Amino acid sequence: MAKDRPDHAPSRRALLRSGLVAGAATLSGKAAAAGNPLNQPPNVPDWSRYLGDGVAVRAYGRPSRHEAHVVRRDVEWLTAAKESSVSFTPLHALDGIITPNGLCFERHHGGIAEIDPEDYRLVVHGLVDKPLIFTLDDIKRMPRVNRAYFCECAANSGMEWRGAQLNGAQYTHGMVHCVMYTGVPLKVLLNEAGLKPKAKWLLMEGGDAAAMTRSLPLQKALDDALVAYRMNGEMLYPENGYPVRMVLPGWEANMWVKWLRRIEVGDQPWHTREETSKYTDLLANGQARRFTYLMEAKSVITNPSPQAPINHKSGFTVLSGIAWSGRGRIARVDVSLDGGRNWRAAKIDGPSGDKALARFYNEFEWDGSELLLQSRAMDETGYVQPSKAELRKYRGVNSIYHNNGIQTWHVRKNGEIENVEVS
Amino acid sequence: MAKDRPDHAPSRRALLRSGLVAGAATLSGKAAAAGNPLNQPPNVPDWSRYLGDGVAVRAYGRPSRHEAHVVRRDVEWLTAAKESSVSFTPLHALDGIITPNGLCFERHHGGIAEIDPEDYRLVVHGLVDKPLIFTLDDIKRMPRVNRAYFCECAANSGMEWRGAQLNGAQYTHGMVHCVMYTGVPLKVLLNEAGLKPKAKWLLMEGGDAAAMTRSLPLQKALDDALVAYRMNGEMLYPENGYPVRMVLPGWEANMWVKWLRRIEVGDQPWHTREETSKYTDLLANGQARRFTYLMEAKSVITNPSPQAPINHKSGFTVLSGIAWSGRGRIARVDVSLDGGRNWRAAKIDGPSGDKALARFYNEFEWDGSELLLQSRAMDETGYVQPSKAELRKYRGVNSIYHNNGIQTWHVRKNGEIENVEVS
Repeated sequence: MAKDRPDHAPSRRALLRSGLVAGAATLSGKAAAAGNPLNQPPNVPDWSRYLGDGVAVRAYGRPSRHEAHVVRRDVEWLTAAKESSVSFTPLHALDGIITPNGLCFERHHGGIAEIDPEDYRLVVHGLVDKPLIFTLDDIKRMPRVNRAYFCECAANSGMEWRGAQLNGAQYTHGMVHCVMYTGVPLKVLLNEAGLKPKAKWLLMEGGDAAAMTRSLPLQKALDDALVAYRMNGEMLYPENGYPVRMVLPGWEANMWVKWLRRIEVGDQPWHTREETSKYTDLLANGQARRFTYLMEAKSVITNPSPQAPINHKSGFTVLSGIAWSGRGRIARVDVSLDGGRNWRAAKIDGPSGDKALARFYNEFEWDGSELLLQSRAMDETGYVQPSKAELRKYRGVNSIYHNNGIQTWHVRKNGEIENVEVS
Repeated sequence: MAKDRPDHAPSRRALLRSGLVAGAATLSGKAAAAGNPLNQPPNVPDWSRYLGDGVAVRAYGRPSRHEAHVVRRDVEWLTAAKESSVSFTPLHALDGIITPNGLCFERHHGGIAEIDPEDYRLVVHGLVDKPLIFTLDDIKRMPRVNRAYFCECAANSGMEWRGAQLNGAQYTHGMVHCVMYTGVPLKVLLNEAGLKPKAKWLLMEGGDAAAMTRSLPLQKALDDALVAYRMNGEMLYPENGYPVRMVLPGWEANMWVKWLRRIEVGDQPWHTREETSKYTDLLANGQARRFTYLMEAKSVITNPSPQAPINHKSGFTVLSGIAWSGRGRIARVDVSLDGGRNWRAAKIDGPSGDKALARFYNEFEWDGSELLLQSRAMDETGYVQPSKAELRKYRGVNSIYHNNGIQTWHVRKNGEIENVEVS
């Protein structure tokens, strides 16, 4: 592996000279001579001439019509039916670390359960002193916490196990989002019911038509698991579990059971469909990895990327992406412009929380030649995101889940970008 | 002032005994005897029986129809026209510190400018070496940062100067929101243009029909001012300045010029309408405070509150609210149940960032008697939120702006709540 070198960001004063402001023009002619270019504007746009819409025209706001292309998208051929499919977060069109609720990826196994909150119930039973049924009002009355966590489907980047397939960060990595959850620590509910001494595992069951069901070790339940009902301040959206879902920080999203209706306490795992025939990793020797809860450190460059090509011919360029780890905080992100031969440290900007997305940037002068962009995350435990080749060495190519390999984008001279693999 | 006393939160195990889970029932009869209450359910709801909607049915998601009451609201009689009015964030229906973009309050002076991003331009001129015009693409190519900040209208709580008026946290305090902004530090743009030695002030001008215009001291421009284009990851919503607005952390929101089209560099303030006849505070002696940029420390209990009454007769109760300060971080929030005679420290949960909202909680056993709820914020500089009486002593009652006095909610025995003042 090539040795790291420090990142020499261009000085701020140099941005314009180096061609950053491609479309920018200096003021010239009569307008500039007048001192204020707006005294004699060639065209005053309508939005400055006429009153616009008043307040509360949209009691619940939505994006500008000019941003109508920034939406979740599915891939028609990926699944047989939309009720058991996935739509992807448009990572290439976002920045920062918070995903707006309307753009959080969806994964359903039986369609969106449209639950009436008045009729919602959560049952806690099994190896407990006192089985309980909670209404939504009960849950909302309990002590609660607010935490930003990433939520990643185990199958995120799953198509890439057998080589570069999907062209765009939205499709290769868009089964991840990060919102601030509000919820009751699961241990509070379990304390209410009272755990029997033999309690070791929990069953979580969804109220959707698929009755999505997974086993959860008690240790996680008593650690940081949340019974959540809000995302980014407001109630969960229907497609993400309204009114109540599990939040299991750092663990694979299929365990974050949505439309949560039942928690059973037991002394062993249930071996449900979703932890036997699905969400297991078939190795080359015929054995399968099971209960692979943790989402390992991962990163992707979101801009530039296939859906967000470089639109200038050369000069000052900001590269940006996201990194996350189910083990804790992101400690460092390195980026490469040459397919992993040379690495430079990226700058992590803004909050970089425990099991949350981190946003990284790197500034460079693009000379207009071809690039092979890569990013490599390291978390606070020292775990380093592997190459796809390293991953395959241990896991083979039969897997669908847990592909956290390094992603490569090939930038052509004309600024177009595609998903490639480098050996 | 009464002496503080420590907060004795009820033990978790006691929640149910004390009546927290009002609607909760323990399992009984045949269902409980069967061990699993879902084996013989009396009614299986439709959402568990039939497939729901598939993915991407809503490419851009929105809240459940059962949350249709959680919206921004205006007050019909407050202003003559909706194009120059305000809609309020439903604070009583939110939790945590992030405001969803669709629920951020609006304040327009000439309606919502609907700007075509292709035709958007930002002019930087005046006392600069090189006047510049930036396109939106230019701005998006520049180095950027992500920061969560509160944004509060100077007139927030303005109706309360003359006594308790509006019934609901949405109306008394709903001209505040908190999102994560992505933007270019203003100093980067100014460095591009090059400041002349005499530069001391900036003029910021909006592209809306009101040409909203304010003067900005250079020191703030070079400190933490952002030329922002994203909120919570996605592009600004039209009503909040799409595609570009000013972000001036901790300062009054009318200076956060939306639809930003022009920045002029000068050597003195411009004394525009919005810093002379408006957004100044007329004192009792006939003089007016001017250039009162800073939003001082403030807090409000959002739940329970008039629009979110207590629905249980007595027992375990969680009180929650938000606090913020234009001077920096919130260091402490105290709450009172008896109109300020006794105070207890609230728990601040989740991120509590510089010039961002902080979320606080306090748990108590409600005995069903009347309460006078108050909260009092203290920031990291030691500034303590004053009572309304203290504020009026210095500012009189002619003001509209900068009312950060302590709010009182009167809880009746039936759980209903109203806005009151205590002497």
